[in-house]
This record gives sequence, C-alpha cells and structure tokens, in this order.
Amino acid sequence: MTVDFLKGISKELDQVKDLISERLNSKYPQVAPLVKHSLKKTGKMLRPAFAILFGKMVNVEDERSVKIGATLELLHNSTLVHDDVIDNADIRRGLKTHNSIWDNTITVLYGDYMFSTAMNIAVELENIEVLKVIANVSKSLVTGELIQNSNAFNFPPDKNTYFEIIRLKTAVLFSACCSLPLIVAGERGLLPLVERFGEKLGIAFQIVDDCLDFKADLKKLGKPKLIDLPEGKATLPVLLAIDNNEKRVIEIVQGVFESNGRVFNEREKKELVDILDKKGYLKEAFNYAKSLISENMEILERFEESVYKDTLLKVCDFIVGREF
Amino acid sequence: MTVDFLKGISKELDQVKDLISERLNSKYPQVAPLVKHSLKKTGKMLRPAFAILFGKMVNVEDERSVKIGATLELLHNSTLVHDDVIDNADIRRGLKTHNSIWDNTITVLYGDYMFSTAMNIAVELENIEVLKVIANVSKSLVTGELIQNSNAFNFPPDKNTYFEIIRLKTAVLFSACCSLPLIVAGERGLLPLVERFGEKLGIAFQIVDDCLDFKADLKKLGKPKLIDLPEGKATLPVLLAIDNNEKRVIEIVQGVFESNGRVFNEREKKELVDILDKKGYLKEAFNYAKSLISENMEILERFEESVYKDTLLKVCDFIVGREF
Repeated sequence: MTVDFLKGISKELDQVKDLISERLNSKYPQVAPLVKHSLKKTGKMLRPAFAILFGKMVNVEDERSVKIGATLELLHNSTLVHDDVIDNADIRRGLKTHNSIWDNTITVLYGDYMFSTAMNIAVELENIEVLKVIANVSKSLVTGELIQNSNAFNFPPDKNTYFEIIRLKTAVLFSACCSLPLIVAGERGLLPLVERFGEKLGIAFQIVDDCLDFKADLKKLGKPKLIDLPEGKATLPVLLAIDNNEKRVIEIVQGVFESNGRVFNEREKKELVDILDKKGYLKEAFNYAKSLISENMEILERFEESVYKDTLLKVCDFIVGREF
Repeated sequence: MTVDFLKGISKELDQVKDLISERLNSKYPQVAPLVKHSLKKTGKMLRPAFAILFGKMVNVEDERSVKIGATLELLHNSTLVHDDVIDNADIRRGLKTHNSIWDNTITVLYGDYMFSTAMNIAVELENIEVLKVIANVSKSLVTGELIQNSNAFNFPPDKNTYFEIIRLKTAVLFSACCSLPLIVAGERGLLPLVERFGEKLGIAFQIVDDCLDFKADLKKLGKPKLIDLPEGKATLPVLLAIDNNEKRVIEIVQGVFESNGRVFNEREKKELVDILDKKGYLKEAFNYAKSLISENMEILERFEESVYKDTLLKVCDFIVGREF
C-alpha cells in the first residue's frame, strides 16, 4: 500500500521492501513461514519515505537511503511484533498477528530476529555515526515501551510521561529517518534543524494517531477504535480533559484503569467520545499536532524547491489531515 | 563469582561488570528495578574472559577488550532473559528470574533493553568490522533459538539440527569473543585460526553443559537436572543413544516428547540417566567435547608463552573438567 502522494518515490519504496524481504529471508525452514507472513502486508512506509525524500534533497545515492529506510522500518516493525505479544493483539493492518498464528514464544523470537536483521542492514552502511544514531534509536524505542508498560493503568495519568513516551517511541525514530541521510551526506549544517523537523513530525504523527483511536473505525484503520484506554494508555485528548477537571472523563478513565481495562461499557465509550469531541479536547490535541506541522513547514522553507520537497509538504499535510 | 583461575584478570572482569552496570542504568524509575535485579548475580563471565585474554595476547588496550566483553556478555544475557520467558523458568543462577518477579511483558521488553544497550556499547568501539561481526552474532543467536523452539518435541530428534543449534547459539558467540580483539588489533593473520578456536570452544562448552543436565544437581548449578528433555530438547548423549537404536531411550524420549514434556516420571528419569551413563553415551559425548578442546590446545601453541595463554589453557581444561 503506497499512499498516493508517495507515488513519485514508489520505485525507491519498492526497493526498501525488496531489501527487507531479501534480508529477512532465511535458509532455515523454521524461519521462512514467519518471514513470509510478515511480508504479506506493509504499512504506509512513512518512515522509509522520509529517509528517501531527505536523501534525495541532499543528494545521497538511493542505495544508501534505501538501506537507512529499510533499517528503520524493520526496527519499527520489530517493536510492533513485540507490542502485539504484549497487547495480546489478534489483528494488525487487517492481518492476523504472528502471535495469533504461532505462539508468544516464537513471536518474541521473531521480533528479535527482525531487530537483528535491521542491525545487519545498518552495518552495511559502514558509517559509525549512523550506527550510533541507530543504536540510540533502538534503546529509545524499548525504553519508551518499558515506561509505557510500567505506567499502564496508573491513575491519574501524567501528561509529561505521555509526552516522554511518544518522544521515545515515535519522535526519536522519525528524527533518525529524516536526519540519517544528512549524516551520510556529511551535511552537518542543516542537521540540528532536520533532527527537530523529524521530532516534531513524530510527535504530531503520534498525537493524530492517538486521536484517531477515538474516531476511526475498523474498516479504515484495520483495528477497532478505543483500544488505548482498555490497555491502560491515556492519550492527549483524555489528558487534556482530566487537566481541565472534566468530572465524567475522570470517572470513566478511573473506572477503566482500576478494573485493568475490564470495565468499559458501550454507554461509557459513547459518553467519553462525545465529551472529548463536543467539548473540544480532540480538537485541542489535533490543533497542537497542527501547530507542530506548521513549524515544520517553516523549516522546509530552508530547502531548495524540488519535487521531493513538495512531496514532504504533502506528507506533512497528510499526517494532520488523515481521516478524522 | 569469578572462577579461581580467572583471578589474574579479575580487575578487567570487574571493569566489564562496571561498564555493563553503568550502561544499563537508566534515569527512568520504571527501568531501574529491572536493572538492579539483573546486576545482583553475574555468571561465570567466561565470554568476556576470552575477550580479555585474547586482547592481552595481541596487545589491545584493556578499555577496548572490556567493551567487547561487555557487549557480548550483555548480548548473551539478553537472550537468557528471553529464554527464561520462553521456558517459563523461575530460577536462573540461583536467583528468581525477571519473569517470575515482573511479568512476561516487562521481561520481554527488558531483554530488548539489554540487547539495545549491548549495541550502544558496541558502537563506541567505532570499528565497522567489529560491528559487522556483532550484528551477525545477534542474528545467529536468535536464529538458533528460533530453530530450537520450532524443533522442540520433534520426534525423532535430529543430530544435525542439534549441532546447527549449538553452532548458532553458542559457538558463533564464543568465536566472536576470541576473534574480535584480533580484529581490533588488526591481527588478520591469526584470525581464521582464532575464529575456529572460539567455535570449537563454544561447541565443547555447550556439549558439556548439555551432559551436566543429566548429572549435575540443583546445589551445584543453581538449576534442577533433567530440564532439557521436558522442554523438548534432545541433546548429544540422547542423540547418540537413539542413533545406536537404544530401545528404552527411544521409548522414554518419545513418551516425553509426545506428551509435550508432561510424561516423565522419576523411574524413567533414573532409567534414562543409568543407560546414558552405563552404556557410555555420556562418556562418548564428553569425549567428543574433549577432542575439540585438544585441537584447541594445538592452536594455542601458535601463540607466545604468557600468563594469559596459561590462563586460556586453564579455561579450556575447566570447560571439559567441570563437575561431571
């Protein structure tokens, strides 16, 4: 599935997919079916898209941008595989999860396998600075996940912790997607700016993703809505409502958390979404994401005009304009 | 716990422990207790000992050998943490496992955390060849574990698969412990020899470890004996007996495997160990390990005399001379 506005780099994104497929493939018959299943459906490939686009803008050979993109997409996917074990999820991207077909044991190991395959692609870039960033990304991803899990069902939830989790789990990875091509190209001047661009993009992306949990439906996202709260995760719209002492939201979230996600009936679900929507909490969260994207548009002005910069602008638009 | 003959490098092994401790430590309160628990007891530290000893023999600065040792020990320990989840183990090295104190979720993530911390230490070596070897080691470890798990309880068990698993799970890692200091030192000439030394050492170590499962007791190893078979793992002594068409061994192992490890009573346990012992299958496996170690002694003759070479010879002796 390539999003429309990424058509211009669909060749490069296909190369990312091919590289991931090639490196995951194993001569061992025990590994092959796991690999085959994980290649059945890719996500939106936004992370490699950023690597490709920034690579084009600073004239990195496609081969290297493709390796950066493949490493980071695979790193991301390896965390999803472990997340699915942790959340006991059955469906991801409309497909059965590995843990629902095999068992948790094999799935944990397959996540490790994807992670180590990512590292094997990364070392081919033969660039120590790049590897330092990637090692740091991998530690951030898992630290974020550990904090999220340790804080699950904590009441009252804490907004600073929420922002720290999305920084570690999403923003650091997005930042690497954007900045690694510059490191490869030796473009030190723009590096701090592009790192910040990637961070803001990641935070905005995650906030919108979290908002969609209250809105999007199964058909559109391939997953049911309202899955975060029963997993003990309070996201920005809820946190804003609690900060604003929104009594009914506090009661409902407390009930969900104190029952470890078991108490959350249809009436409460409807009530919660209604308050978040009508009282503007969803809009407020969404507007915050939009403001980050606006700041990013300004950063992009520092780059020369090109078809790739246009695409980046469209990706930014897409991130905050997804079906709401 | 430092084994007696490693006293001569106890300062360097302490530096490995300190480095691991320092890099695992986290500013996040959610991570700290997991780290604290994993630092309570270290293993024999054989893997870093090889890195230190070979480092000394080829004049690598201790600081670099310590980083190699810490990376590989941490990589090894991260797989043990995931193994304990997979095997549902309660005790490791006489201590409660992470999964028995926290839950599987947190423990899987903590294993990932150790793995990514290992990668963060590795990149500090700033040597692409070293990182290529480490990335390959990590993929071998998990591939070996995947194959072992996919083949668990398969009857009849296959000797080639057994050797492939111990090559991937143990020998590749031991080989890296021995050879990475040479790569750092640029000692290309002896490299193939030392890689082979490490592989043989790893295979011998694992075979002896597997033999001890039939012999050692809880007090000595910190784990109960006869744990491999009920986990669906047939090791060398059993494989040799089956190859030799040892009827009663075949019956017992088939019973254990077909019941997924549930049927294995005390009488059968005693009977199995008796046959393996009295009919010489344990001895045969053990002698095979010994022959690999003898070949290694010959390889060591190529190195100049030194206190470190003496220690290496003692480690080799220890590996096949452990309480049997």
